[in-house]
Amino acid sequence: VILTVTLNPAWDVTYRVAALEPGQTHRVERVEARPGGKGINVARVLAALGEQVLATGLVGGPTGDSIVAELAVDSDFARISGESRRTVAVWSEADGQTTLLAEPGPYVQPYEWAEFTTGFGKLAAVSEVVVLAGSLPPGLADASYAELIGRSPAPVVLDAAAEPLRVGLGAQPALITPNADELASAMGTGTDVTELIEVCRRLEVPVAVTLGTSGAVLSTPAGSWSARPPTVVHGNATGAGDAFTAALARGLARRFDAPDLLADAVALSTSSVMSPVAGEVDLHTYRRLRSAVMVREL
Amino acid sequence: VILTVTLNPAWDVTYRVAALEPGQTHRVERVEARPGGKGINVARVLAALGEQVLATGLVGGPTGDSIVAELAVDSDFARISGESRRTVAVWSEADGQTTLLAEPGPYVQPYEWAEFTTGFGKLAAVSEVVVLAGSLPPGLADASYAELIGRSPAPVVLDAAAEPLRVGLGAQPALITPNADELASAMGTGTDVTELIEVCRRLEVPVAVTLGTSGAVLSTPAGSWSARPPTVVHGNATGAGDAFTAALARGLARRFDAPDLLADAVALSTSSVMSPVAGEVDLHTYRRLRSAVMVREL
Repeated sequence: VILTVTLNPAWDVTYRVAALEPGQTHRVERVEARPGGKGINVARVLAALGEQVLATGLVGGPTGDSIVAELAVDSDFARISGESRRTVAVWSEADGQTTLLAEPGPYVQPYEWAEFTTGFGKLAAVSEVVVLAGSLPPGLADASYAELIGRSPAPVVLDAAAEPLRVGLGAQPALITPNADELASAMGTGTDVTELIEVCRRLEVPVAVTLGTSGAVLSTPAGSWSARPPTVVHGNATGAGDAFTAALARGLARRFDAPDLLADAVALSTSSVMSPVAGEVDLHTYRRLRSAVMVREL
Repeated sequence: VILTVTLNPAWDVTYRVAALEPGQTHRVERVEARPGGKGINVARVLAALGEQVLATGLVGGPTGDSIVAELAVDSDFARISGESRRTVAVWSEADGQTTLLAEPGPYVQPYEWAEFTTGFGKLAAVSEVVVLAGSLPPGLADASYAELIGRSPAPVVLDAAAEPLRVGLGAQPALITPNADELASAMGTGTDVTELIEVCRRLEVPVAVTLGTSGAVLSTPAGSWSARPPTVVHGNATGAGDAFTAALARGLARRFDAPDLLADAVALSTSSVMSPVAGEVDLHTYRRLRSAVMVREL
């Protein structure tokens, strides 16, 4: 089983309005909602691929109840006293633009974190791979992901940004999966591809970095590879990073070699971009792309 | 006791952001929430004045639980299967502007409405005055307020707009309390003060209409009066209409004569505008204004 951890999950609400006009009152025409958060999205992609997955993390309050009730994957979340956050995405019919408002999330008490880490250790001990993904809620130290990596007997894929990513590197995860901006910002470099590849090569931790339409790079102590889809695709980029992380977690569990691991992740994230529904994967496209993705050693 | 009815109450959430930029992602810096809806606001003002008040209406789901739990006035709401709505007010620090997003509210089933009307009849039978205020949720007919007026042995103050106001007039409420726009729109006239006073005089139902900085007019079959505050005040206009309605409901219960009723309502709504907190009333200002409001017969 692959274990995904979402410490700051969200109830993602979408409001459809005729046109978003700052300072005005809007009648919301349609309300939709579903569970969100990077780890939960990764779990959904894995379940769609037929993988055994267990989603864990922290939830609280009635919003936490909604998140767990609508997950549609196996889960074992720890309860906290604060209420889980919401995000509100306002979709304006007039211009098709989406405006996102993300709540910070509940404050997590030290004893709640201590309880969670104990439970996490037990779940990680019976997992093939662990995925830690997304932002940390208020109250949790930047070293929280590092602490979980230290407690996991299973290899850990870390999909984080900023300080939690930088501090997490010190705990030697099996793989980190930042995008170009997240990697550049955590390492204090520019986003130029050549510069980023140099940064990856200097790290002791394997890195799979997404480069938007330029594909992705996988760098390990054994070598570096670059992969790109056969054609540049346009579409719904939301969730492409989560599909990328999901594929890498599955590939690690199956012990794919490095070029295969990268090709598979690029194929899956590209098919996610081509799916009409944000955050879902078009399995037919994925199978077609899987053999067409070009990998070269750097 | 004064009974207030809120058929489409809301959990009013305020998001504070650095600046609202359509199409962008925003980190919400602060989240605040409290129960809302016109009838609930009227009940709050009455409770602040020391009146005995009971809030009723329809609530559902966890959001309905939050509304009832945080009311801070006596309440007896009927439960429905749908979930109560939220409103999201986005306050932008950069320009001080507020952008409001109002959900439509839950669909009310016919059997839920039938149950509510029965319970309402019992509550109205032991009330001095009934206040019906705010919009109707999906599923309820435009004649819903008219139906409640027909079932109430106590005099009814109707604070509604559009069709529910127009249809409600036929059921002979004791008083309607529209603002100038609502009255003009329901009657199909312009918003010119002289024209509105003519409209009021032709109605068989007593009307108290707010005219913004021009004060207010009360028109009954016995005569018409105009009142304005001693000075033009500026400030937080949110909730001024609810304070106006609350004062009129209390005045009816106490059988104030028409000029007193109007003076009192103008004093209370003006002191609400002058309060630093939206929807609250500055009692000190109210007492000071009470004797200074000028009423003249038209």
